[in-house]
Amino acid sequence: MAHLSIEEATRLATRALRHAGASEAMATSTALALVRAEAQGLASHGLVRVSQYATHLRNGRADGSAQPVIASHKGAALLVDAKQGLAFPACDLAVATAITTARSLGVCFAGVTNSHHCGVLVDHLRAVADIGMVGLGFANSPAAMPAAGGRHPIFGTNPVAAAFPRRNAAPMMIDLSLSEVARGKLMVAAREGRPIPMGWALDSEGQPTTNAQAGLAGSMLPLGAVSSPKGSMLALIVELLVTAVIGAQFGFEASSFFVDEGNAPRLGQAFVVIDPGALAGSDVYYERMETLIAKMLQDDGMRLAGARRARLEEQARQSGLTIPDQLKAQLDQLAA
Amino acid sequence: MAHLSIEEATRLATRALRHAGASEAMATSTALALVRAEAQGLASHGLVRVSQYATHLRNGRADGSAQPVIASHKGAALLVDAKQGLAFPACDLAVATAITTARSLGVCFAGVTNSHHCGVLVDHLRAVADIGMVGLGFANSPAAMPAAGGRHPIFGTNPVAAAFPRRNAAPMMIDLSLSEVARGKLMVAAREGRPIPMGWALDSEGQPTTNAQAGLAGSMLPLGAVSSPKGSMLALIVELLVTAVIGAQFGFEASSFFVDEGNAPRLGQAFVVIDPGALAGSDVYYERMETLIAKMLQDDGMRLAGARRARLEEQARQSGLTIPDQLKAQLDQLAA
Repeated sequence: MAHLSIEEATRLATRALRHAGASEAMATSTALALVRAEAQGLASHGLVRVSQYATHLRNGRADGSAQPVIASHKGAALLVDAKQGLAFPACDLAVATAITTARSLGVCFAGVTNSHHCGVLVDHLRAVADIGMVGLGFANSPAAMPAAGGRHPIFGTNPVAAAFPRRNAAPMMIDLSLSEVARGKLMVAAREGRPIPMGWALDSEGQPTTNAQAGLAGSMLPLGAVSSPKGSMLALIVELLVTAVIGAQFGFEASSFFVDEGNAPRLGQAFVVIDPGALAGSDVYYERMETLIAKMLQDDGMRLAGARRARLEEQARQSGLTIPDQLKAQLDQLAA
Repeated sequence: MAHLSIEEATRLATRALRHAGASEAMATSTALALVRAEAQGLASHGLVRVSQYATHLRNGRADGSAQPVIASHKGAALLVDAKQGLAFPACDLAVATAITTARSLGVCFAGVTNSHHCGVLVDHLRAVADIGMVGLGFANSPAAMPAAGGRHPIFGTNPVAAAFPRRNAAPMMIDLSLSEVARGKLMVAAREGRPIPMGWALDSEGQPTTNAQAGLAGSMLPLGAVSSPKGSMLALIVELLVTAVIGAQFGFEASSFFVDEGNAPRLGQAFVVIDPGALAGSDVYYERMETLIAKMLQDDGMRLAGARRARLEEQARQSGLTIPDQLKAQLDQLAA
């Protein structure tokens, strides 16, 4: 394993993205986000993405010179066009503008269209929680799950995120995708030759399967799919919020992030920023938060959302990151 | 079975609620909603609730003379106080005001605090879809599900709803609660002496159970709980949106709807109204909707959300409702 500081990692990632054609602003915003994910122990959304994004920049799947713009801003409805660049600077612009808008109007809905992979969705809501507002995030991703009753992938695993600030503690940070399990769990089972439970996946014919390999060739199933279509209905809501409402592409229209060649995914993200000061009032809001948390902590073993990630990040900021040698070598090569 | 027209059913329900102390406006709004649910085949949210609400009105758990008011309205953030009355007139006021606000500001977040049971959540969004806007709905309910890692019920089954209008077709209407299955499924299994799958419920000690009777005495489990805490994280997001943000009570603070005595539940609902005309624009929005629906319908057996309910309601409006004799007798007695 290789060891490097947060600053070294950020510098390396920035340089690698610059070499692949990203503007200074895009490379910096993206590198900061990927290092933050790595620091939180979210390796699948961390530094391994540098090479993926660099390949997409080189192959025209993402435009390194794109500058996100505010395409429209009517009252509390904001639309940012990522112009097919990497998602991070566009999400930064959307969230920053949404905060300003929510400060005067109480609420803002901000969409980001023509976008790319947005990394750890909830991290975009840090700035929202930091100023005492509540944030929700939604995104779609290349098709991986069927619609209710369907046999072929249409929706992405479509993450949902939320950030709820606390008065004298780190905010509650929630982030989940709407598949029953992450694809990584199928990959582990396939490697070990173990079967998977019903309800994790369909095979390529759209039939339920307990064969991990067959599941990898088919579709992931939405949350609770073994019992009902609720999970696919949630995925449908997210899909429509970040596409029909704001004009982005559907998951089934986007090429996978995990192939080198393909189209510009032009996917969507949406953020809702809510100022509790304009509704319950800050005092009531913080009292309610602490009342619920105290109740939750009465049960042993309760984990507060985001606490583990925050602890890991704190550690990494003090003592640096440890990554596989191979990944370090790849970053060095891309940055050279 | 007894047969009665929509008009007769509405008159009966209105009179029963009036006799229990509801104002004319509250009784009418509530009766219309319950009959609409019954007509859609949603009997558990239909006319059986008349007697429950009447009991709550008589026992002071709901105030029949309450008049909902706009407690605050700052820009796109709206707060309605149901004043501990039945939920329906308060939700009507919130949604109507939110539509007007979204027309000028593109978006509105409307909370309803000090509220009661809101019936079929998505039905509150009909008016939103009817004028071409997108609506989201959230509500909490008395505690029935544990938080992630917990053993005792804290959150309600916390429904989520969404309405997406289409240009020349009925809107897509989505409505689901966040439990893996409805409590009714446990009741059926218990009656038939059958075991239930793991992942449906915990017993009263907070242990996973396959015994339906033990599950009924314990907690329902959230969507996908057998695999991960994602479902309970979704329930947490909904719980906080409709309580901390707007000042309502938590599910664990409210007495069950299914007991006669108890407190005024003072629960919360929240609605988000979004005008696609202020974001993607109407033409793009409708094109995107039809593109997705066409793709979904390529798979055989695909059901569009809300289509079955809409068909049943259409039938009932033409040929009336059929309800159990016992329910008809109960309504007659309450209305006499």
